[in-house]
Amino acid sequence: MIEPMTVAALHRAYSNGAISVGELLHDCLARARNDSHQAWISLLSDEQLETYIINLADHSPADLPLYGIPFAIKDNIDLADLPTTAGCPDYSYQPSEHAFVVAKLIAAGAVPIGKTNLDQFATGLVGTRSPYGECHNSINGDYISGGSSAGSAVSVADGQVVFSLGTDTAGSGRVPAAFNNILGLKGSIGRISCRGVVPACKSLDCVTIFAKTSDDLAAIWPVAAQFDEQDEFARLQPELIKAVAPNFKFGVASAEQLEFFADDAAKSCYHQAITTLTEMGGQAVIIDLAPFSQAAKLLYEGPWVAERLAALREFFSAHQEQTLPVIQTIIGGAANYSAADAYAALYQLKALKRQADQQLAQVDFIVTPTTGTIYTIDEVKADPITLNSNLGFYTNFMNLLDYSAIALPAGFRQNGTKQGLPFGITLFGPAFYEDALLSIASRWQKQLPLPLGALQAQPQTIDLCVCG
Amino acid sequence: MIEPMTVAALHRAYSNGAISVGELLHDCLARARNDSHQAWISLLSDEQLETYIINLADHSPADLPLYGIPFAIKDNIDLADLPTTAGCPDYSYQPSEHAFVVAKLIAAGAVPIGKTNLDQFATGLVGTRSPYGECHNSINGDYISGGSSAGSAVSVADGQVVFSLGTDTAGSGRVPAAFNNILGLKGSIGRISCRGVVPACKSLDCVTIFAKTSDDLAAIWPVAAQFDEQDEFARLQPELIKAVAPNFKFGVASAEQLEFFADDAAKSCYHQAITTLTEMGGQAVIIDLAPFSQAAKLLYEGPWVAERLAALREFFSAHQEQTLPVIQTIIGGAANYSAADAYAALYQLKALKRQADQQLAQVDFIVTPTTGTIYTIDEVKADPITLNSNLGFYTNFMNLLDYSAIALPAGFRQNGTKQGLPFGITLFGPAFYEDALLSIASRWQKQLPLPLGALQAQPQTIDLCVCG
Repeated sequence: MIEPMTVAALHRAYSNGAISVGELLHDCLARARNDSHQAWISLLSDEQLETYIINLADHSPADLPLYGIPFAIKDNIDLADLPTTAGCPDYSYQPSEHAFVVAKLIAAGAVPIGKTNLDQFATGLVGTRSPYGECHNSINGDYISGGSSAGSAVSVADGQVVFSLGTDTAGSGRVPAAFNNILGLKGSIGRISCRGVVPACKSLDCVTIFAKTSDDLAAIWPVAAQFDEQDEFARLQPELIKAVAPNFKFGVASAEQLEFFADDAAKSCYHQAITTLTEMGGQAVIIDLAPFSQAAKLLYEGPWVAERLAALREFFSAHQEQTLPVIQTIIGGAANYSAADAYAALYQLKALKRQADQQLAQVDFIVTPTTGTIYTIDEVKADPITLNSNLGFYTNFMNLLDYSAIALPAGFRQNGTKQGLPFGITLFGPAFYEDALLSIASRWQKQLPLPLGALQAQPQTIDLCVCG
Repeated sequence: MIEPMTVAALHRAYSNGAISVGELLHDCLARARNDSHQAWISLLSDEQLETYIINLADHSPADLPLYGIPFAIKDNIDLADLPTTAGCPDYSYQPSEHAFVVAKLIAAGAVPIGKTNLDQFATGLVGTRSPYGECHNSINGDYISGGSSAGSAVSVADGQVVFSLGTDTAGSGRVPAAFNNILGLKGSIGRISCRGVVPACKSLDCVTIFAKTSDDLAAIWPVAAQFDEQDEFARLQPELIKAVAPNFKFGVASAEQLEFFADDAAKSCYHQAITTLTEMGGQAVIIDLAPFSQAAKLLYEGPWVAERLAALREFFSAHQEQTLPVIQTIIGGAANYSAADAYAALYQLKALKRQADQQLAQVDFIVTPTTGTIYTIDEVKADPITLNSNLGFYTNFMNLLDYSAIALPAGFRQNGTKQGLPFGITLFGPAFYEDALLSIASRWQKQLPLPLGALQAQPQTIDLCVCG
């Protein structure tokens, strides 16, 4: 086993003959079959995997940037080999072709292993809203994995694949990254094609990438983020912002605007992260988080939920009772909103975006906790709506405001009942800011060489690196 | 009287002492008071006008680009001197300050004369939907002026002011230009501030400018199109596209996709316009008008009408019966649309925009008739919905697709029952293309020196210039 399993490490191992592509991929598939987190909904057969291995026979890392790199696909993204369920067996369909982004990754040499578990219809931030089982946290199985891209994050953290695809509407590409000690890159709306993806809120949805290092994200991003003329929400990068200057300004909220839901250990980790950014050459600037928080509320308390109904109207009207009760409650609520409500909320959002942009313009990027806290599976079962909503406090506004963001591991809680669980921060900037975020992420990982994922982050190693 | 009354002609007359600012402005106000078209809802008092004249005392054309230039304001745009009615007496309110764009024009030396008649709540393309009287065409009073910016177009065409402000959601800044032999510039959404403007469809509304020459528009545009940080829909010009090349490509629809509603004389004028553009150095390229036409249908047959309800919800629920029956029918229909409908239509629009953009990308601009035909006031009375809808055939898609457009006079019908009535074409391009459209408009007016407005376009002169 190659650990840490990164693009560079695998390419080295392939090149020096330490392992063959076939051995590595079958090993990954075997580990996925033995997964104990309920991370997967379906996996390739050995025969299906063999086809991919054969297709790589005449290639090498020299001509394919993702040659022989195993990846997982959230099960709301089409892979022609397996059904797409979106976490709902009755909704399941067999796609005739790969999603655009999946096809691009495969063409670059990456090899899919299977489809991962998710909150049903990508509606949730917890990872427990699935008839395929609650997805367990990769570091402490009593805890939630985070969602909705639950299995995608866990399969990366647990070393079953190098990277995975998730989706992110309200935070699904960031929350599970924080909970599993990995990175999550949520690019700008329209940078990764959503063609072949089951919509959640189609005007906000992003396909995201989970990986253990910023180097991996930097290798995968240009392959994944290819313009798709046939995706009506696809956008071309208008200009290039390649890096953040050595001495940079980063925005932070004042103490009163932060919310840790009584998780003091998380709060300590956050403050340590601010210190680390300062040590990297950053200058903290207090910004007003209010317009961001107000936009966040609009997403869950406003008419955007009707996008979820618009996406599923036909299925939902015929099969409502085949969806989870919590999903019925959420999507069913969409019927209360009129078109006039939708436009009125759009106007509110436009005004909030103007205010938020003014805050963002003062700095190179803003940093927040990815989530204020984390919950056990039992806690979420007892209060599924409120606790889910708490997890979106720092994430819900991101796509509404058209920002790009990266979730980064930022150490482990040192004390309290949640000791040992990972903590994450999110850096965000304007649309099309992905390259700049990747550059600062690279500097972050050099400054703070944490254990990667879950395999390195077991209790015996955590002592070495509490909160950086 | 200075005729043609343009910015340059007035500035010459002021500079050489042919007329004083006071004389000219009081003369304009007197002519507006004698207007026979029902173009005005309210006019300044002599005392109010005098204040503006006094404020200009220490200035000249050398320091104020619009020094002493009289203009009219559509009565859905705030002028602090007069109430804003939006064409509905019960809605009327007294604004405490000028609309942002009005303030900018006044600061540049322009002087408002009064507030002009409009289709109630800017809902219509006819100019007859007003309790302040049907606005009559400036060239043939049996005909409609076009709307909703009815009085704004007529007051310019009839030589009562040099320019005027209109608004444009579905075509209101272009249709009345075509019907009154003047120009109408509909810039990109967000280029002219809409703060202090009664919303129609807030996400689509544009403030527009009517004038008799492209030179006037070029003088007024940079004053009017100043970024307003407090308008949540305001946008900064991202790049400069200054002019169209001497040899250019322009898009035209195939014969089957054009619609003149049996107005053969208009059809002849359109084909003559294509010939003129070719003589100017243009090469006609057949493009597919279908995605544009489909987007146009979405505006009137889709949920965007709910924006009109969202804008007026409080007033409309309490005072519905104080609006015109046709307005009650239209805005009342908004209640049928759900938020899910609104998002579903947005997705359709996004797909159509991708297709339309592909057509536009083949050429420097696209040219269409501004309208296929024109109607008498009696015809519109007999069939107010369908005929209004016909007038939007070439205009309804423009703001939905986020394009900029200019309506240009293109000659007069040579024969048929509508002989002598003006015909207009519209050139359009992507967002932020205003300078390029102005450059081609200037070349157009040099190539085709038509009589200007209504005063030069009386029957005895029209023979000289039939369709160019």
